[in-house]
Formats: sequence, C-alpha cells, structure tokens
Amino acid sequence: MRSGHSLAFQQFEEVLSEVQISRIESSDQEINNLIQSSSLSEGSEVSAPFRMTWAAESDWEPDDPNEVSSGSCLIVPIPSDDSKGVLLRSVGYAEAAPAESSYSFLSDGTFLLTTQYEQSIAEERIWFVSEHVRCRSSVLRTSAGSGVLQTSFASEVRRLSS
Amino acid sequence: MRSGHSLAFQQFEEVLSEVQISRIESSDQEINNLIQSSSLSEGSEVSAPFRMTWAAESDWEPDDPNEVSSGSCLIVPIPSDDSKGVLLRSVGYAEAAPAESSYSFLSDGTFLLTTQYEQSIAEERIWFVSEHVRCRSSVLRTSAGSGVLQTSFASEVRRLSS
Repeated sequence: MRSGHSLAFQQFEEVLSEVQISRIESSDQEINNLIQSSSLSEGSEVSAPFRMTWAAESDWEPDDPNEVSSGSCLIVPIPSDDSKGVLLRSVGYAEAAPAESSYSFLSDGTFLLTTQYEQSIAEERIWFVSEHVRCRSSVLRTSAGSGVLQTSFASEVRRLSS
Repeated sequence: MRSGHSLAFQQFEEVLSEVQISRIESSDQEINNLIQSSSLSEGSEVSAPFRMTWAAESDWEPDDPNEVSSGSCLIVPIPSDDSKGVLLRSVGYAEAAPAESSYSFLSDGTFLLTTQYEQSIAEERIWFVSEHVRCRSSVLRTSAGSGVLQTSFASEVRRLSS
C-alpha cells in the first residue's frame, strides 16, 4: 500500500502494488554494463545485486482505474564499508534514466538512500517494523533549492516465494 | 496530510488536519498533575512542554465528510540525557488514556517514540526533511505479539504564527 502526498496541491494518491525482488548473480553481464556506464571503476565489489519488478494500480488513473503500470529495474549495491556505499539502478525512481545513489544506515538499521537526478533530489528511507513488514518513505525535492515537491509512504508486507 | 494504511483490509484513509503547537510554562499546574499520575517522581526535570491541538477531516466519515474531529493534548518531555527520555501525554495516540512513552533520537536526529498501551504498542518517528517540512510515521501493533495492525504517514508543513 503506497500513499503519495502532493504538498502544493494537497492531493493524495493511493496505490496498490506488488513488488517482486529476486537475487541475481554478481557475474551477470548487465551488472558490468551498469557499472561501466557509472562513475565507478570497473573492478568495484558488488554486494547482493537484485532485480525489482513492480505492478501498480493507482487511483490517479481515472480513465481506467484497473490499469496496471509495471516496470523492472536492476539494483546493484556497491558498499564502501559496512554502513554506507553507492547503489546503482538501471531505472531511476524520480526520473527514468539510470541512477547513482548514495546509501547509509542509521543507528537503528534504517536504510537511507539519496539520489541526485537532473531536476530533483530523492531521499528514501526503508525500515523494518517486524520481520515481514517494512515501511518505505520518500521525499522529492527540487535540486535547485530545498522546496519539497512530494512525499510518499509505503507499507509493505513480505510474501516469501515458494 | 495524513494517510492511514489498514493492512489487513488494504484500506486507505486520507486525513487533512491542522495541528497547533504552543509552548507552555514548566511551572503549569497541569504538568505537575500529569507527573504525579505517572510512574515518574515528582521532582522530574521537564524540558520544553507544549500543548498540541488538532482539527482533522477524514474521508472515513462518509455521513458528513466535512465533519471535523478535534482534540487537545498536553505533552511533557522528561529527558534522562541528551538523546533519550520519557514523554508524558495527557491523551494517548492509540488509546485515549494518558500515556507514558519512551523516546530517543537516531544518529541523524530522527525522533523515535514508543508507547505501550493496554491493547497495543505504538511506534512513531518524526524527521524533518527541510526547515519547515517534517514527516511523521506511526506503526500500531498488537501488544501480545508482533502483528502490525496499521500504519500512518503524515507530511506536515510548518506555518509560523505571527
């Protein structure tokens, strides 16, 4: 369940979405391609790369409320130490181009992700509230100033694949 | 703007609310009363107590969508050191009785608040995303187990009073 808040217009968005996460091999050629097109050097040590696939229904698509938007994205963490590093994405969150984010963990294990896009900066945080429930929030701000454009919040329940 | 997620029923709630925060004097008699009815000792050092007043419109009141629910609450922080302490509330968040919460700050300044109610445990976090915008999330779980009942998320824009 994901809610979007558009602050300037005080508009809510409601999204139901299925997210699938599957591990991929570090040796996968796509990972190499992603690293090569990034600012990182080729031999960078990759940790637990995965593919994320989503299918979402939003109440902001009034023409066909049952239309499902979907996508897929390769995500490659490259730790610099145990608590922080860089994360490469083949498709960005705020803008569709490949994205390079910096990540770190807070003292309680909350995961922070900051991505500088061309027009905006996205700050995401993910934390587990029980073994199988996690929360994810995002804040999108203008890259020029500190104006906050929108926020979102997701409550996610894990289903283990059989 | 506040969104509620009822996980078992996959239901969204949308709330627009005005929150007013005003400082009160540490010597206020109401503060003493609240401390006396808590588990804390009478001489406990109070830091920056305040009154919070709210007026909210929820889309879950279909009979009269413009009906405003409102309330007011005294909030009294009692630090044990710079990074943690106890917070007393004259009215609870998950249940209406007075509540005693423990609070702490994460490494980035995120404020964490945990309250044990009779039937449930509420975990709230508050963080500023810019000088005048803050986010607030809550997770409500059963006090018996780790079942997560509902979550909520608020994006709050500060208006300074003149």
